[in-house]
Amino acid sequence: MRRAVAIGGGTGLPVVLRCLASLDFDVTAVVTVADDGGSSGMLRRELGVLPPGDIRNCLVALAAPDSLLADVFQYRFPAGEGLIGHALGNLIIAALAEMRGGFAEAIEGASELLGVRGHVLPSTLSDVVLFAEDDNGGRVMGQENVAHSVARVCSVHLEPTSPPAFPPVLDAIRAADVVVLGPGSLYTSIMPNLLIDGVAEALCATDARIIYICNVANQRGETTGLDAAGHVRALEEHGLLGAIDVVLVHDSDTDPLPEGVSPVDGGADAQARIRARGIAVIATDLVDRLAPMHHDPELLCAALRRLA
Amino acid sequence: MRRAVAIGGGTGLPVVLRCLASLDFDVTAVVTVADDGGSSGMLRRELGVLPPGDIRNCLVALAAPDSLLADVFQYRFPAGEGLIGHALGNLIIAALAEMRGGFAEAIEGASELLGVRGHVLPSTLSDVVLFAEDDNGGRVMGQENVAHSVARVCSVHLEPTSPPAFPPVLDAIRAADVVVLGPGSLYTSIMPNLLIDGVAEALCATDARIIYICNVANQRGETTGLDAAGHVRALEEHGLLGAIDVVLVHDSDTDPLPEGVSPVDGGADAQARIRARGIAVIATDLVDRLAPMHHDPELLCAALRRLA
Repeated sequence: MRRAVAIGGGTGLPVVLRCLASLDFDVTAVVTVADDGGSSGMLRRELGVLPPGDIRNCLVALAAPDSLLADVFQYRFPAGEGLIGHALGNLIIAALAEMRGGFAEAIEGASELLGVRGHVLPSTLSDVVLFAEDDNGGRVMGQENVAHSVARVCSVHLEPTSPPAFPPVLDAIRAADVVVLGPGSLYTSIMPNLLIDGVAEALCATDARIIYICNVANQRGETTGLDAAGHVRALEEHGLLGAIDVVLVHDSDTDPLPEGVSPVDGGADAQARIRARGIAVIATDLVDRLAPMHHDPELLCAALRRLA
Repeated sequence: MRRAVAIGGGTGLPVVLRCLASLDFDVTAVVTVADDGGSSGMLRRELGVLPPGDIRNCLVALAAPDSLLADVFQYRFPAGEGLIGHALGNLIIAALAEMRGGFAEAIEGASELLGVRGHVLPSTLSDVVLFAEDDNGGRVMGQENVAHSVARVCSVHLEPTSPPAFPPVLDAIRAADVVVLGPGSLYTSIMPNLLIDGVAEALCATDARIIYICNVANQRGETTGLDAAGHVRALEEHGLLGAIDVVLVHDSDTDPLPEGVSPVDGGADAQARIRARGIAVIATDLVDRLAPMHHDPELLCAALRRLA
């Protein structure tokens, strides 16, 4: 069985996981734990657990089909003092972490309950805070704040610096045939994984084919004005120089995005500048016309099938 | 397969369910929904769900052995704003009730998830409030308040009066070979089930052998000074005249309770007064020496095996 590792967070990673599982890869998800917003952020502050939300979405993506428990994990309380807004699966993961004495053990327990095919790994077990330096020389503390930054982000960092990787993460990257980065928020879902000690090095050293799936739309502040080549350059500046083999871009020249959505420019010029750095480019129509900030899962998976 | 129905609530009912399942009965639990305290009470008030706590304990008692999910259901949050004190299974049942559009459907879903062998039925799907009339002519509103009443309770009632039974409850009582009432709080766990329209009538009409397991210890206020015969009389006054075939009592003459625990007098005199009403009595040592307010699960199950 060929082995695939998908790295990221947020809503993009589960889409890739579903695709890779359908292509019969032995799938490992490497998931950021820098999230400090929403239900995850509340649980971090109140129960001292690592943020379970992105982990939960990956577990559900790899859960047994038609799992009632997966629906229970995704249920979000619409009311109730202290309950409102919590995803029930986040509460279950938090409970398992205390019952079993650790976050990794909680994910193992939840994987067992959900009949997960594959592996979901937090990139680190350390309690980290993400911060960014922006174009104006300011510092923005916390993932949620970085994601809502108005000034453009230049670089991101973790506090504490270079936390140790969760060891199975490095093993999985070394043993992989394919590694997929993204899609997902560049600075708040993908980068936090690259700031973990050993992860960028393992990506540079592995024999796996490394595919970067560039976002189709820019996020205000975080990546304003950055074209596909700019996304790649930012990854290179965060440790991935020489690591990426292929970039998958939405060809915004031939398939422009609907009005109101700020596209990541993936046209001929951006493509040429990526190729000039020795990286292959696949440009095709990838956008979800119903949710044009995102990739269409089927178009994305068809492109990945050809590549991986 | 012989069919057993166990009726009650609180901590006594799960003990009986585990025993009946081990004796290879097809087991149905009929569970009070009058609870308004603790985690259940909070969820009733905040989410408008029927109280899930007693139901949860019965589901777990009948769950597949070594079920990790059963441990998850029983996990109680030790901290967290709005989470503290909630049993996680209560939250899961509340979520399923909204996901599936009903409390009965939620219990079915939870039964499926937990691999429950048997059936757990709320005695009614109506939103009821329990109230009591006490010795001083006062009225005490709400199950939690009745359970903590200082004055002795004379009778209990539901508001609204005679809510409709959940239909499978009546079917189960009619089809049963054995019905077990208790152990459990007389007025707040057992009686609320008898106040549901049709339940006491079905118990009077069924061919099943009806066994009442009398508590070993009195509860301050609720049953102060009531001996075993007094417990039986109270049940008769709440609709069970002629229904009970056998009473199982702890013989407090030969096996006195430790100091500090107020025993339900189940000695020779009380036994004689029960027999005088045409009801068989089995008196034996039943008390849990480590938790002398309660039955010892193994002693209780050995007695039930001989009876059922």
